[in-house]
Amino acid sequence: MYDLIIIGGGPAAAAAAVYALGKQLHFLVIYAELGKAGRTQQLAGEPGTEFLAGADAVRVFERQVVQADKTLRDYVTEVSQDSGVLRVATQQHGTMSTTALIVATGATPIALDLPNAKNLLGHGLGYSITTHAQLMDGKHVAVIGTTIRALRGVAELSRNAAQVYLVAPDTVRLATPLAAALEQRPNVEILSGYEVEELVGARNIEALVVTRAGQARRLSVDAAFADLGLLPNSGIVRALVQTDQDGFIWVDERNATSTPGIFAAGDVTTSFGEQIMIAIGDGARAAISAYDYLLTTHPLAPFGPID
Amino acid sequence: MYDLIIIGGGPAAAAAAVYALGKQLHFLVIYAELGKAGRTQQLAGEPGTEFLAGADAVRVFERQVVQADKTLRDYVTEVSQDSGVLRVATQQHGTMSTTALIVATGATPIALDLPNAKNLLGHGLGYSITTHAQLMDGKHVAVIGTTIRALRGVAELSRNAAQVYLVAPDTVRLATPLAAALEQRPNVEILSGYEVEELVGARNIEALVVTRAGQARRLSVDAAFADLGLLPNSGIVRALVQTDQDGFIWVDERNATSTPGIFAAGDVTTSFGEQIMIAIGDGARAAISAYDYLLTTHPLAPFGPID
Repeated sequence: MYDLIIIGGGPAAAAAAVYALGKQLHFLVIYAELGKAGRTQQLAGEPGTEFLAGADAVRVFERQVVQADKTLRDYVTEVSQDSGVLRVATQQHGTMSTTALIVATGATPIALDLPNAKNLLGHGLGYSITTHAQLMDGKHVAVIGTTIRALRGVAELSRNAAQVYLVAPDTVRLATPLAAALEQRPNVEILSGYEVEELVGARNIEALVVTRAGQARRLSVDAAFADLGLLPNSGIVRALVQTDQDGFIWVDERNATSTPGIFAAGDVTTSFGEQIMIAIGDGARAAISAYDYLLTTHPLAPFGPID
Repeated sequence: MYDLIIIGGGPAAAAAAVYALGKQLHFLVIYAELGKAGRTQQLAGEPGTEFLAGADAVRVFERQVVQADKTLRDYVTEVSQDSGVLRVATQQHGTMSTTALIVATGATPIALDLPNAKNLLGHGLGYSITTHAQLMDGKHVAVIGTTIRALRGVAELSRNAAQVYLVAPDTVRLATPLAAALEQRPNVEILSGYEVEELVGARNIEALVVTRAGQARRLSVDAAFADLGLLPNSGIVRALVQTDQDGFIWVDERNATSTPGIFAAGDVTTSFGEQIMIAIGDGARAAISAYDYLLTTHPLAPFGPID
């Protein structure tokens, strides 16, 4: 019986684990893939170093957790609750019991559903604007989507790019101060109500064909970024905790879910963020709340010496 | 004219600065004292290593910010606002103008107002329970106060200490599940409604004299921790932003204050936390919100090459 199981391999899970280490909890981190967040990506033909704020800190955390031998690489298939005990079923290591649980399973970007999208991914087509904006000096770039990250991305790209197109199928979200400011930038064009019909390019992206009400336009671009939103990886606890209509786990200001003993942090939650350092903070918040829950539930084992 | 001025020298300010570095903002961090948070403290006569989750990460951040030469050591005396421009007055470097401001000035623990308190500080008397709990094996310890941190501290201490006294002048806050759980622990005694009359000890703390309705009790202790709450260092912006009744700066879920352009993070805010990693997350959240504000307000300078 564990005090705490943490599910996830990103910065929120790593921070929660570092806190649990300090409190000498009997805990385990179960992850399918460790440390995907914080690795920089390269767009083909775009040399230059990237700077991702917080990535160094996550590396520090990962080392601490891996050194402490508290991790298990496996897939969690189901979480259930039985008279106050949480049961975590894995694909290869059976079912484990725990008093508290932190879900930090992240979210997956919604992929562009177009014939050429897979071929061009990494060849001028990407999903992360914020880590590439400074590489777009003098380029023609398109952003597809109207999330806050898409809008912020357009604003960032407009600092360097010669021309930025925002292809915005969903016009509802354009009623924000940031979108209004973008319309005033000379190097930004907002294609409101347009959909992407085709990604043109053989080895590298060359153009987008976009349409509205049957009218087509061809946009020559050096790069394109899609930000259609995120799909939360919350399936394993969807039956146990409240989520919003898109499946993001609802958490309060202490990162507690609607179910006692279950906490959540990072991109899988309703909390604003999607940045590594924010995920670190929310992971720690979830861990402190889980610790308070454990301290309330039962006496914990005494602290031992610190290595 | 700066894009952003960050006031503070703790983890929230450091994280905000790391984000601002990545976005190549024209910014400055003004601090009176750098990196106080995250330094471990030693209680006299208590050998042993401490582990403070997140301290390593803060060191990484501090190095990045100091290397980038974006810091100024000075005291901020006043912040004012004049037709959309924020003016930050310092003691020795005059007044600087900025579009956006992040206040991360922290909070100061309320000191124990007793004759012997200053003498015994660091000699068995401390203000940080969480970093010392594992050093209290078999000891008699008292906690003074009823904040959530005081209650969590009692629960932590009860993992190792022989006896923990909670001296709780304010009985209102004892109506929590954690306080109820503590009453059941055999090695915890809650002295509800008692006040500390005297700290006994010459070189090291030896006992507390506590009283209730004229009745005195003497508690022999090896150590005592006071957690009477925090006083927010929010005076410089108190006239500009909304605070709660204790002076903590009210922030929304994006760490924006009630005044456009002013953001806040860390212990000076109403946000739940008081842990380094949470301050890191909230500092980053404030920086992203400030960045969104800047992107909305005016075009930023193009990205340059990354060092």
